[in-house]
Amino acid sequence: MNNSIQVPGFLGNGVAAGIKGGRDRDLSLIFSEVPARAVGMFTTNRFKAAPVILDVERIKKGIAQAIIVNSGNANAATGRDGAEDAAAMSRVVSKALGIEDELVLVASTGIIGEKLPIEKITQSVESLVGGLSADGMPFVAEGIVTTDRFPKIEYRKCFVRGEEVTICGIAKGAGMIEPNMATMLSFIITDADIDESCLTSLFKESAGKSFNAITVDGCMSTNDTAIMLANGVAGNSPVSETSGNLVEFKEALSDVMVSLAKSIVKDGEGATKLIEIVVEGAKLAVDARAIAYAIANSNLVKTAFFGEDPNWGRIISAAGSAGVPFSTDSLELYIENVPLFMNGVGISGEQAAGIMKKDNIRVLVRLGMGKKTFSVYTSDLSHEYVDINALYRS
Amino acid sequence: MNNSIQVPGFLGNGVAAGIKGGRDRDLSLIFSEVPARAVGMFTTNRFKAAPVILDVERIKKGIAQAIIVNSGNANAATGRDGAEDAAAMSRVVSKALGIEDELVLVASTGIIGEKLPIEKITQSVESLVGGLSADGMPFVAEGIVTTDRFPKIEYRKCFVRGEEVTICGIAKGAGMIEPNMATMLSFIITDADIDESCLTSLFKESAGKSFNAITVDGCMSTNDTAIMLANGVAGNSPVSETSGNLVEFKEALSDVMVSLAKSIVKDGEGATKLIEIVVEGAKLAVDARAIAYAIANSNLVKTAFFGEDPNWGRIISAAGSAGVPFSTDSLELYIENVPLFMNGVGISGEQAAGIMKKDNIRVLVRLGMGKKTFSVYTSDLSHEYVDINALYRS
Repeated sequence: MNNSIQVPGFLGNGVAAGIKGGRDRDLSLIFSEVPARAVGMFTTNRFKAAPVILDVERIKKGIAQAIIVNSGNANAATGRDGAEDAAAMSRVVSKALGIEDELVLVASTGIIGEKLPIEKITQSVESLVGGLSADGMPFVAEGIVTTDRFPKIEYRKCFVRGEEVTICGIAKGAGMIEPNMATMLSFIITDADIDESCLTSLFKESAGKSFNAITVDGCMSTNDTAIMLANGVAGNSPVSETSGNLVEFKEALSDVMVSLAKSIVKDGEGATKLIEIVVEGAKLAVDARAIAYAIANSNLVKTAFFGEDPNWGRIISAAGSAGVPFSTDSLELYIENVPLFMNGVGISGEQAAGIMKKDNIRVLVRLGMGKKTFSVYTSDLSHEYVDINALYRS
Repeated sequence: MNNSIQVPGFLGNGVAAGIKGGRDRDLSLIFSEVPARAVGMFTTNRFKAAPVILDVERIKKGIAQAIIVNSGNANAATGRDGAEDAAAMSRVVSKALGIEDELVLVASTGIIGEKLPIEKITQSVESLVGGLSADGMPFVAEGIVTTDRFPKIEYRKCFVRGEEVTICGIAKGAGMIEPNMATMLSFIITDADIDESCLTSLFKESAGKSFNAITVDGCMSTNDTAIMLANGVAGNSPVSETSGNLVEFKEALSDVMVSLAKSIVKDGEGATKLIEIVVEGAKLAVDARAIAYAIANSNLVKTAFFGEDPNWGRIISAAGSAGVPFSTDSLELYIENVPLFMNGVGISGEQAAGIMKKDNIRVLVRLGMGKKTFSVYTSDLSHEYVDINALYRS
């Protein structure tokens, strides 16, 4: 095996179908040579894009063999036409691959409300399938981006019951990132053999620490999709949740997903910084989460970080607005271990001014009320965010 | 009576105390020649500024005679010192006015977490009180602004039981505007004689349509304060809630408060547009409200308005993310009466492109699920918002 990113039994490709109107790749395909166990998480937005509606049904069977993804058009709010286009996208690729149509999952990302240019996709499927290769994952990653500045791909190896297995994850993000899978697409593939309930719980647990613990602008999209396929080609003895043989795999999977999630935030539209907001000492986990998100989604906090201003007043004010009861005298605030607020009063931000110039910044809020903790990653709010989103055509 | 803004029995003034570090007015005083009925609404942030804590206690008596307000420093998150400074601010002005200290209310707005420069205030109180005049309300309005581009003052006359009465309202806003009184100060004065329960209900009802129905950036401040004083100098026969003699007064009060609220949004940090989001046809009022705010606070929607892009996809996506169940096929979206979405599909935004250039834009979402309605005013999100808030010193 060479240094390229390969997952045994999986092939990938990405081509330029002209959906984005240029020569950039905008149509991707992941194909497993054998049917794979499949789990997925999807947007909770009332407006679900046509491919999401299709996938939610299909993934119930817990098995899939291909994922076709286009960027440049979300196929969302497209009514009956949209549903037909998503189905057509699946049909044309299942035919070309010679597999059951029911084993294809579909994802789209891009502009909402415009009819999918299905003929561009149909015309490109031959070259998409023809170019499938074990080394094709980077092309898949390229083909799914929209306003992302860079493709996101992560790759880990680990052992399950003595067999070496591989995990590869790709993702696209940029704006509209909020928990519950806001405009984010992510596809995780592995050759490990893992039973369905185990795969589901591992995937959900890792998502809780990664894709569901990030925010860029608090907006939840119509298309968010995260799918994991495990094709079992590694041939490890099957493992169950209680077998204790999954520690390494669990860590590697978390690592892949958290790394992707961080990349998404770092590449948040116009983001110049990756900020981790940690809330400790809450009575309830939901309280810690509510406070972490109130801080992470505060435009005043996010612009202060863009301005490299250790404006602890905005941070504690955001914390206080979350609707969670706590003692303002017990709250402690630190930025990168520099204390900025305790015993009800602020501490001069002079020391923190240098720290604010860093690209990665950790904010710690201690409530002193209990033992629950929550962490969320967010980005700053810059001129470029406004540019990108004021000019992106509807 | 001349054309100036006067409310019988009320005097006002605003001076430059140097709190903002320049020659701008930053210390204001409203004084009623006789004790007035007083009602107030305050921030629900866990971190309440020292003057808010003081006012919440004092206003329980339902009577007040003076309001002293400084801008440039919020006296928030300032611990015991802050409480002492707020009390000192009250003491020095009650002494100079020769009134009971308990009849003074205090408000502050500006930077959070820095000690109030109390000596600057103490030193300026003589000129503040000495300059009190019936024509001083515009100076009061000037003295309370922070990043506001213009002072906000509204003035109406109406009749209560045959007597002419006056209502004058002043406000400051700019950023951090959210319901529950986010960084907003507003003071409403009238010479009408209105009993306490009646005044309370009128004030709350108008606040529900004005200060509690606006948002600039979804941030709730530590200092939000809205106070109404009614000194009874007009000598109208007292009115009770059921007397039916208050229709005109109620309308005039609403008009003052809604006009102030709209001014606050129009003057939202960097705002170029005033956008009204109307949600109709909800099953529950809280549903209508949740959807209206989800749209109004969406950075993607707000940047689209800044870009004058009729991006209906972002609007319906924001509506769908509010956690409220509705049928996506029944939802209708209009911008200024131009239909943009119905029967589950979008309609070309061409027609709406011209409308987006307007300064005042009305967005209507019809859910078709019931009869409840909610309206909220918001602003767009511009470069200038980022500038103001990245550079405003903590």
